[in-house]
Amino acid sequence: RDRARLLISCPDRPGIVAAVSQFLYQQGANIVQSDQHSTDPSSGLFFMRIEFELPNLGAHWDELTGRFAEVARTFQMTWRFNRAHVPKRMAVFVSKEEHCLLELLWQWQSGDLYADLVMVVSNHPDAGATVAPLGIPFYHIPVTPETKKDAEAKQLALLASHKVDLVVLARYMQILSGDFVRQYPNRIINIHHSFLPAFIGRNPYARAYQRGVKLIGATAHYVTEDLDEGPIIEQDVQRVDHRDEVEDLKRIGRQIERTVLVRAVKWHLEDRILTYNNRTIVFR
Amino acid sequence: RDRARLLISCPDRPGIVAAVSQFLYQQGANIVQSDQHSTDPSSGLFFMRIEFELPNLGAHWDELTGRFAEVARTFQMTWRFNRAHVPKRMAVFVSKEEHCLLELLWQWQSGDLYADLVMVVSNHPDAGATVAPLGIPFYHIPVTPETKKDAEAKQLALLASHKVDLVVLARYMQILSGDFVRQYPNRIINIHHSFLPAFIGRNPYARAYQRGVKLIGATAHYVTEDLDEGPIIEQDVQRVDHRDEVEDLKRIGRQIERTVLVRAVKWHLEDRILTYNNRTIVFR
Amino acid sequence: RDRARLLISCPDRPGIVAAVSQFLYQQGANIVQSDQHSTDPSSGLFFMRIEFELPNLGAHWDELTGRFAEVARTFQMTWRFNRAHVPKRMAVFVSKEEHCLLELLWQWQSGDLYADLVMVVSNHPDAGATVAPLGIPFYHIPVTPETKKDAEAKQLALLASHKVDLVVLARYMQILSGDFVRQYPNRIINIHHSFLPAFIGRNPYARAYQRGVKLIGATAHYVTEDLDEGPIIEQDVQRVDHRDEVEDLKRIGRQIERTVLVRAVKWHLEDRILTYNNRTIVFR
Amino acid sequence: RDRARLLISCPDRPGIVAAVSQFLYQQGANIVQSDQHSTDPSSGLFFMRIEFELPNLGAHWDELTGRFAEVARTFQMTWRFNRAHVPKRMAVFVSKEEHCLLELLWQWQSGDLYADLVMVVSNHPDAGATVAPLGIPFYHIPVTPETKKDAEAKQLALLASHKVDLVVLARYMQILSGDFVRQYPNRIINIHHSFLPAFIGRNPYARAYQRGVKLIGATAHYVTEDLDEGPIIEQDVQRVDHRDEVEDLKRIGRQIERTVLVRAVKWHLEDRILTYNNRTIVFR
Repeated sequence: RDRARLLISCPDRPGIVAAVSQFLYQQGANIVQSDQHSTDPSSGLFFMRIEFELPNLGAHWDELTGRFAEVARTFQMTWRFNRAHVPKRMAVFVSKEEHCLLELLWQWQSGDLYADLVMVVSNHPDAGATVAPLGIPFYHIPVTPETKKDAEAKQLALLASHKVDLVVLARYMQILSGDFVRQYPNRIINIHHSFLPAFIGRNPYARAYQRGVKLIGATAHYVTEDLDEGPIIEQDVQRVDHRDEVEDLKRIGRQIERTVLVRAVKWHLEDRILTYNNRTIVFR
Repeated sequence: RDRARLLISCPDRPGIVAAVSQFLYQQGANIVQSDQHSTDPSSGLFFMRIEFELPNLGAHWDELTGRFAEVARTFQMTWRFNRAHVPKRMAVFVSKEEHCLLELLWQWQSGDLYADLVMVVSNHPDAGATVAPLGIPFYHIPVTPETKKDAEAKQLALLASHKVDLVVLARYMQILSGDFVRQYPNRIINIHHSFLPAFIGRNPYARAYQRGVKLIGATAHYVTEDLDEGPIIEQDVQRVDHRDEVEDLKRIGRQIERTVLVRAVKWHLEDRILTYNNRTIVFR
Repeated sequence: RDRARLLISCPDRPGIVAAVSQFLYQQGANIVQSDQHSTDPSSGLFFMRIEFELPNLGAHWDELTGRFAEVARTFQMTWRFNRAHVPKRMAVFVSKEEHCLLELLWQWQSGDLYADLVMVVSNHPDAGATVAPLGIPFYHIPVTPETKKDAEAKQLALLASHKVDLVVLARYMQILSGDFVRQYPNRIINIHHSFLPAFIGRNPYARAYQRGVKLIGATAHYVTEDLDEGPIIEQDVQRVDHRDEVEDLKRIGRQIERTVLVRAVKWHLEDRILTYNNRTIVFR
Repeated sequence: RDRARLLISCPDRPGIVAAVSQFLYQQGANIVQSDQHSTDPSSGLFFMRIEFELPNLGAHWDELTGRFAEVARTFQMTWRFNRAHVPKRMAVFVSKEEHCLLELLWQWQSGDLYADLVMVVSNHPDAGATVAPLGIPFYHIPVTPETKKDAEAKQLALLASHKVDLVVLARYMQILSGDFVRQYPNRIINIHHSFLPAFIGRNPYARAYQRGVKLIGATAHYVTEDLDEGPIIEQDVQRVDHRDEVEDLKRIGRQIERTVLVRAVKWHLEDRILTYNNRTIVFR
């Protein structure tokens, strides 16, 4: 199709919107959605997402992006264009619990998640049976403390050879190394099974039970080198009460996890997320 | 201050954002927030809200608005500029139940509701005691089927002489005539104590109880001549269960009503609402 | 296992709890959960659900239920015992949209829905491919205005021969006749894709869009002869805004529908629901 | 009136419900609500709350409670009876921010909060003007590090002389000493302005902003010697996004705080809360 998105970050100052919208107009584009955010109009950062249509987009692509470089230079912009109809290439990592994987597959099959699902990777063989009938390549790469380095090398090779754009950790219970993470900045989304920053780390449901909380939650975030400290994309909670044992919290939590993860992945695929200062701007 | 808002509706076509942002830039304005919506990029309607800062706004006001008329003409725009620091003049109509009035007063006192509260009108004398200590003029105008016409005449005279911009019906239990309503299009906000379009009309909580619903709600909407049929601004709900009698529904409902009404009023005061086709666009 | 549930309805009067708990104690049972509700302690109806454990339950079953008849007579009780480990026999009816069916299958496979899924019935052949790999019998019974009577006869014969306890209408787009419904009182659960009583009948999402609501919802209810008028079991809503077209409402609505339907089915399977006066009491 | 509540905790074993309900029946009481919870039917703890009506309750009170002591002994119960129409004596502690105090006053005035509001205590003079017109005694007791010990002595003397049952910390920004807290176990309710255990301690909104969370919350809990570690009674959250600055979080948070605090206080006043293991059981 003829739809594209332009994402911009730059120091805020007067004239940015005028320059960008003037440029797009001159190229023949019609803006269909536009969102912006300024951390501080006088001396802050400016962020913008524009979705536009340009007839015969493919033919104009190189010219469009080439000419925009000039505008971008003037305003010291970090920027990127993405064509809406080019699906991002997505890999899903999973361990034994498949509820997040299943929700991703489902939304993907129903067309609500627009991506090429190029592979599923797991440190356990179980998910293979789920994935196989759908024709999605499945790679079983076991991970032990001894083999972790090799396993990550294999994973990285797969991601590279499949030109993966986005890695989704769908309850993948292994911690990725800093080396791995640095190669996919803001391109690895994890679902943590608590309302961060509460219950960072292992066994959040058991600890939530122990603390006697009245709501439990889940958090989707970009993965950084610091465990569970990356920019938060989305969070949600559900009410629990004294009758709910740890197993109930896990069951209720599974529903929150899959909902929250899918929302975050969807927003990423639609180029709705910008990050700065370990925070996300989500243009919904 | 030097902040203003521009609201626009017009047929959608390429170049609107460019023209408007170019214009504002040339006047020396810095856009701090911008939201837009198109019902259909090819042949639909385009809606926009821009919040901007312009140094020494007061001195430039006439020039700014005068010159914009040209831009507006080109695109067949319906438009208005509002200065953010000029409070809207608000009247609150109330009957016996004061929870919505109290919430409005409270938010107004704490500065969260930016308006001049120029009068409170009631068909009962009770609210006078609440309003008097705050120095807000209170008018007790009784309404009976016989006196309704006269009562409305008095109310309209008061609204006119106080140059009221917005009328808030905070559980005012009288139905305004079409004549009244037509004089304040999209400028009367009512809180209906149900999740519209369920339980239009009288006694919604009793009927909600009767039907055995598991959630009850409230709806803030602009008032039109058709009872409870005006453009919906905001709605919310709360969970109830079999233990809740009608009185409980009313008590729970009061919390929803005051929350929902205040949100709607706040958005109106901040010029965040546009209407078309009996629907609202709320740029939050 | 040795766990059972006792459900009771009767006129309220002093001594019911004492008599029932005394009886269970004398039989050697330990009450693990107990919920009760009275519409009015002086002259109303009393409802109770008791979950208890009795060692070697199977051997005592006939004696237990036989002897309870005496207690029940004294208090004019409507009552039933159910053994927790005996799964109810469930049939799912579906048309073309499979999201509710899929959620039911998923929860059933993960063990969160304790039932025997004895058949899936559809007026379209599509769902067969989903159901077949799981070994669940699938019956394709087309329905036209002319064949409806025959189709229902076939359906009823299937339900009878499979001794079905519960029929779940998982977006089954045919209206069941009064004859059908009367054979399964409080044993047919439907999911309606609106927040009842708003948008009864066809195309609720299109009508919700038209009305400009700010929340959309779904309702699970027992089916009675009056369309969409049966006792409501569960409802939930999600926020929408002006950017959401009818297709978006449908997409968002699918998530609500599957959540709400599964909750209602789960509560039914766990004997948590009693009805009176076209209302439900849900002992959670 | 003739309504009372009985609260029980004891080791779980068969026969408790039978014995208690039999006892109440023999005294002529009619049970109108009954809730129970067992941490583990085989070897756990059993908790129960029974609300009942007994004609001419006042005349039977001593006999009722005296005779129950026998039943209680048999089952090693911790227990208490409370008469529903005897209001608890409540003191509210507040600092400069009055939104939680105002909500309490409001619900108390409207009759939704059934208590004797015997005093308001503050380390600042400001709230005096709010409280005075209502005829509630106001005590301004400044607190500095040097005078804290004396201030607490004064506060404790006031609480004792007014026979206060419940202390509500409605955004009271001083930390009570262990000595103070130990005198009112499970009788001091605090509102913490975060979703505990996230953001324990000072400035939770600033830290929530810093972390970039997508929901903010509030927590009502009983106060123990460990700051923000007491049993959680109630929590709730609201959605925020990248546009919300710290000031917005505070404003949004105020709404959550007052809602959550009032719910917790209401449940306490209605004897709905039991505690064990630093957790609460809330029989709603």
